[in-house]
Amino acid sequence: MRPIRIAVAGLGVVGSETVRLLRARSESLRQRMGTRIEIAAVCDRHASAMAKRLGLPASVRRLSDPRLLPGLPGVDAVVELMGGLDAPRSLVLASLRQGRHVVTANKRLLAHCWKELGQAAAQGRSRLHFEASVAGGIPILKALDTSLAGDRIEAVYGILNGTTNFILTRMAEGMDPAAALRRAQELGLAEADPTRDLSGQDTADKVSILASLVTGSWLRPAQVNTSGITGVAPEDMAFAETVLGRRIKLLGTLRVLSRAGRRPAVEAFAAPVLIPLAHPLAAVRDEFNAVLVRATSAGDLMFYGRGAGAGPAASAVLGDILALGRELVSGAAPASAPPGPAPVLGESACSFYLRLAALDRPGVLSAVTQVLGGLGISISTIHQPGACGPKHIPIMLTTHPARPETFRRALRRILALPDISRRHTVMRLLP
Amino acid sequence: MRPIRIAVAGLGVVGSETVRLLRARSESLRQRMGTRIEIAAVCDRHASAMAKRLGLPASVRRLSDPRLLPGLPGVDAVVELMGGLDAPRSLVLASLRQGRHVVTANKRLLAHCWKELGQAAAQGRSRLHFEASVAGGIPILKALDTSLAGDRIEAVYGILNGTTNFILTRMAEGMDPAAALRRAQELGLAEADPTRDLSGQDTADKVSILASLVTGSWLRPAQVNTSGITGVAPEDMAFAETVLGRRIKLLGTLRVLSRAGRRPAVEAFAAPVLIPLAHPLAAVRDEFNAVLVRATSAGDLMFYGRGAGAGPAASAVLGDILALGRELVSGAAPASAPPGPAPVLGESACSFYLRLAALDRPGVLSAVTQVLGGLGISISTIHQPGACGPKHIPIMLTTHPARPETFRRALRRILALPDISRRHTVMRLLP
Repeated sequence: MRPIRIAVAGLGVVGSETVRLLRARSESLRQRMGTRIEIAAVCDRHASAMAKRLGLPASVRRLSDPRLLPGLPGVDAVVELMGGLDAPRSLVLASLRQGRHVVTANKRLLAHCWKELGQAAAQGRSRLHFEASVAGGIPILKALDTSLAGDRIEAVYGILNGTTNFILTRMAEGMDPAAALRRAQELGLAEADPTRDLSGQDTADKVSILASLVTGSWLRPAQVNTSGITGVAPEDMAFAETVLGRRIKLLGTLRVLSRAGRRPAVEAFAAPVLIPLAHPLAAVRDEFNAVLVRATSAGDLMFYGRGAGAGPAASAVLGDILALGRELVSGAAPASAPPGPAPVLGESACSFYLRLAALDRPGVLSAVTQVLGGLGISISTIHQPGACGPKHIPIMLTTHPARPETFRRALRRILALPDISRRHTVMRLLP
Repeated sequence: MRPIRIAVAGLGVVGSETVRLLRARSESLRQRMGTRIEIAAVCDRHASAMAKRLGLPASVRRLSDPRLLPGLPGVDAVVELMGGLDAPRSLVLASLRQGRHVVTANKRLLAHCWKELGQAAAQGRSRLHFEASVAGGIPILKALDTSLAGDRIEAVYGILNGTTNFILTRMAEGMDPAAALRRAQELGLAEADPTRDLSGQDTADKVSILASLVTGSWLRPAQVNTSGITGVAPEDMAFAETVLGRRIKLLGTLRVLSRAGRRPAVEAFAAPVLIPLAHPLAAVRDEFNAVLVRATSAGDLMFYGRGAGAGPAASAVLGDILALGRELVSGAAPASAPPGPAPVLGESACSFYLRLAALDRPGVLSAVTQVLGGLGISISTIHQPGACGPKHIPIMLTTHPARPETFRRALRRILALPDISRRHTVMRLLP
């Protein structure tokens, strides 16, 4: 078997570490794969300098423009580790269409272009591996796609974003949110612009990938009910921990509500959730990731590890390169399962947490409880911790399980009450 | 693609559940695999009665003697779920040699016949899948063999036996060991003869499989340093929890000590270990299993779930059948990595726990500490909780990290002291 020639696009921390490991572990990879991996080309804005720093031989082509990569002859597979969306999209689609295989860690690309990517791969009869796109070094995607594929996945709950989990961990210890973000940035756990992390969009992308894999049909990131952690205040954390015995985590959630009928019904969230302290996901601290899979036969499975960083991402990329290599050595035809029916979005009843800001006047609490009671929503806990400003005081409450549309109707009425501010925070409780 | 015709051997709880799920999920399996699974035959001592109970059509052959199975025409794969060793060994070896693929959950078979099975599969160009043999529904073997195969595995620590973990959980709560075993048997978590579980042999088999997979070369169960939980007494549990802040778990351990030189050096244990209470493995309760993998790039990964029971085992078997089906549909040639060099066994320094029984005479403690000190082993904690019988009192101590051969020399000298009984318990501390 001739060597498999790859081009690595993007020599940032993950790309550099991938190249380093491919060279350092080349003999062990060859033994496990049955052939050699040969780095034919690297592509990076600073390709020459990076190639020099990595000690690559002169035979490795250096490209600074990824648009030249699809035209490069003699490349079997492209390893895309550039990040971003537009440039990787062009590169990966062109490569797949030309029959080149692709390994990528790019969650945005997968989540936003799932269907296009599948079509391009089918057109080129090429293969696409993307384990590193969700939960870094944790092999959750292959587990869902292979080992658990004979089971029925009922739900997936994941702490999928290390940045926000680090911030929430510090906040649970009493640190101010802005200070927690600065600390994350100092440690290299948050980017200069952390918007996609804090807003939940990064988690939504990963939920989209998990949902598309589980249902066999693309669930767009925009279909994931997304809210970030910017609405989570220190008083929410304190109330959750001390009064409710719960911890707030940004959770990516996929629940398969029904498989009856032609189209499955799913519920997809990327939102902060109040988790019981005894739940295994509540113990996941700092920048760690964890995924809990609920399967009909296997029961609850949990996968835990580092979701980010050069090492874990490169480990997953190497696993993908190895899987690809084995497929090519074995002569296997690429799998081409037809997409399943698109899922419909549903919502299931759940308990809600609500923080309001109210004028400190007699009768406010009674007005709020009247609205909820009038719509048949029963209150579990209600708490008015005292004045927090010159005029408005917070009211925190949790409900017993309620239908989301009923809760939203109640919320609209509550926010229209004269003594209630429009400012508020809503989160769900994990049962 | 024509359907894949399988024979299921063994219709106990796992076999029956597998057949039930293969039928209930046939359409979803077909979609994910690209072809149908057809149950061509079942084999069981009570094959007719079981086939009737499972509602199998008359076209499914019923065999009561597994020796007839290899001669049966038109079978692509055998799913071996009989348990035991001799009959499955004959069936699986004959099937593989004839070019029939095999899916099995039989850990004893894998652990004790690893090399023979590999040779038979190579001879018949057939495939062998065995995810269910270790940690039931937790997809740990595929993770090690695929996703993590590009990484370097440094260690694997697993709670791999649900029966003993249930018993140790009850003992940590204060239940008497015999009562805990009876409770496990009542709940169907322990067999009538629990010898292989209690003695650590079952865990050693699983360590053997993990080690063979990680090193690429058969590590025999007899090479796994094995001691069961029968030496663990309630006073050990109490001392560990209250004085040391540790919990006793039966751990399967594989550590790769060195990869330098031609042969890797590994350390393999199936033994009770004192784990810090804050360690994630300490939180694994009841009959649950968990595996912690330490990889150079990915860092620490933990996999958690149900290690036993019909559902989890059948989930893993279905995953294997699906993987096999996909391989056959894709036309992939079976992988045939040559076995790696056989590992040499090593031992690394560690802290030890020792419980002695001593006559309550002045100077006993001093004699013990003198032996240890004389060999350069320093003591971390020493405790003499008071008389526990008419003559002998227990002494519990822990050491700082010591070389195992030095510790064993010290132990021999201590047990030869005049006032020390031969009865003793040694366990290791997880760092």
